Amino acid sequence: MIEVFTTGGTIDKVYFDANSEFEVGDSLMGELLAESNIRDGFSITGLMRKDSLEMTDEDREAVRAAVSRCAAERVLITHGTDTMVETGRSLLSVTGKTIVLTGAMQPARMRRSDAIFNIGFAWAALRLLPHGVYIAMNGEVFEVGSVRKNLKAQRFERTS
Amino acid sequence: MIEVFTTGGTIDKVYFDANSEFEVGDSLMGELLAESNIRDGFSITGLMRKDSLEMTDEDREAVRAAVSRCAAERVLITHGTDTMVETGRSLLSVTGKTIVLTGAMQPARMRRSDAIFNIGFAWAALRLLPHGVYIAMNGEVFEVGSVRKNLKAQRFERTS
Amino acid sequence: MIEVFTTGGTIDKVYFDANSEFEVGDSLMGELLAESNIRDGFSITGLMRKDSLEMTDEDREAVRAAVSRCAAERVLITHGTDTMVETGRSLLSVTGKTIVLTGAMQPARMRRSDAIFNIGFAWAALRLLPHGVYIAMNGEVFEVGSVRKNLKAQRFERTS
Amino acid sequence: MIEVFTTGGTIDKVYFDANSEFEVGDSLMGELLAESNIRDGFSITGLMRKDSLEMTDEDREAVRAAVSRCAAERVLITHGTDTMVETGRSLLSVTGKTIVLTGAMQPARMRRSDAIFNIGFAWAALRLLPHGVYIAMNGEVFEVGSVRKNLKAQRFERTS
Repeated sequence: MIEVFTTGGTIDKVYFDANSEFEVGDSLMGELLAESNIRDGFSITGLMRKDSLEMTDEDREAVRAAVSRCAAERVLITHGTDTMVETGRSLLSVTGKTIVLTGAMQPARMRRSDAIFNIGFAWAALRLLPHGVYIAMNGEVFEVGSVRKNLKAQRFERTS
Repeated sequence: MIEVFTTGGTIDKVYFDANSEFEVGDSLMGELLAESNIRDGFSITGLMRKDSLEMTDEDREAVRAAVSRCAAERVLITHGTDTMVETGRSLLSVTGKTIVLTGAMQPARMRRSDAIFNIGFAWAALRLLPHGVYIAMNGEVFEVGSVRKNLKAQRFERTS
Repeated sequence: MIEVFTTGGTIDKVYFDANSEFEVGDSLMGELLAESNIRDGFSITGLMRKDSLEMTDEDREAVRAAVSRCAAERVLITHGTDTMVETGRSLLSVTGKTIVLTGAMQPARMRRSDAIFNIGFAWAALRLLPHGVYIAMNGEVFEVGSVRKNLKAQRFERTS
Repeated sequence: MIEVFTTGGTIDKVYFDANSEFEVGDSLMGELLAESNIRDGFSITGLMRKDSLEMTDEDREAVRAAVSRCAAERVLITHGTDTMVETGRSLLSVTGKTIVLTGAMQPARMRRSDAIFNIGFAWAALRLLPHGVYIAMNGEVFEVGSVRKNLKAQRFERTS
């Protein structure tokens, strides 16, 4: 059983013409999994719809509590990329679970997006990794204690 | 470095109106990886464009030879789902590599397809699995020696 | 009010992996109109789901009867391209209506398809044309009495 | 021959993760026409890439001059929806041409967008309308002198 918690981020952005801008919308996760022929063995809960630059300590505590409380041993969290590492590090205190955070550089609602690849990638990571907290982005798995987002290159990379 | 070999299958089918049917076309792999923000660290070779029901022993030997000969330790093979297990088993003699076979139930060229999820899933499987031959389909990893395609349910499942 | 009758054709084809082939499925028309922000002022009826090479005289009579009987003055018919002209010509006896037939060379369910462009094109043709029967394909409007499908070029063209 | 001038607007917006926002990008027009099986009989020129709330009198004069100077009798202009009517009205002085303005409420780069339907709709309008200036949006044709954008309903409608 995989428990999916969605918190917002670019992956879930929707374009609102009335405001001439995007806003974080409903998670597309359920629809993307169905399209990908994944029909059972998971549960999806929307925790919040935040741009990750706006995540607060309370938000991170709410995520930690939900992850900690759930029965599943494997947890996928979709999250904005800007502070994915911070949220990941706040989850290091949770034991007995494999926790993978992923997101996307392009909203899942775009014709061309990294969202579905990243979700599939994270899904396999959840099946195969030992307990711990990981970031799954740009086709690589990173332990959350040794990764950062390189803003200039717009990619995640290992720190020494 | 991930070596990608494409052999055809549903994943690469194209619709030809002149023939009123779908035929295996060029692999979409390069385009899908670029959309998914995966830009380096891999090489793609199209070995053949076959519906997997039409794969012969010569075809399987050609695949085995290409996999065996390549320098990479991680090999992804896209393949039709009907005989993916047979081709996988014929690769058990190749040592020193992690080999993952994947494909799709819906062509990658469809608006709704499991192709990109499966490719992302297989990409992570390649990063994390020890040497051996595996099938990555419907969100699970199977050792090739203990999996079969359940035609009725249209899913891959473990055999005892 | 626009009355939409769907009869099948490439535009509605779906890929069925179990059969390794396409088949005509439910019309995607309602979904495509909603995506295109067209939410009212029309009604959709699925008359049949046929590859147009398999349309019979009874099928064409059923189409003619439905068109003739409906209250709307503007009628859109989605149809396979191979015998679209024949069906169009069988509708010349219907008076007092603007009837436009369209379809697609690539199923609407493909990522890249002419389906939505053709539907939008036909929608405007319905708003602007006088009573009569027309084919709207490859970005042109043809009177049904002077058009044919050029099989080699895979395009519709005017006959002298 | 249809002359296409692109000026920006929602239809051409691209999502830039680095800025956490959508910005007007290259026009997707050429790619959308090719997907729609429209391969010749048109020319595309990018005049500017502006959100229409930022169009100035100089911008409108540049559009008017380009339209006026071109040889084609049929001109399609893609434009942001917020001030499409203003730009349309500034073109009423151009004679001897059928000019249709269209755009989209959702960027063409989204999986679900009204962009392709609107372009197809406008293409037919160009084939069928007499000389003059028109807005083609939400499945209707409006003479530019008697239309406005209803901001609340997010639709174009006829004024008395």
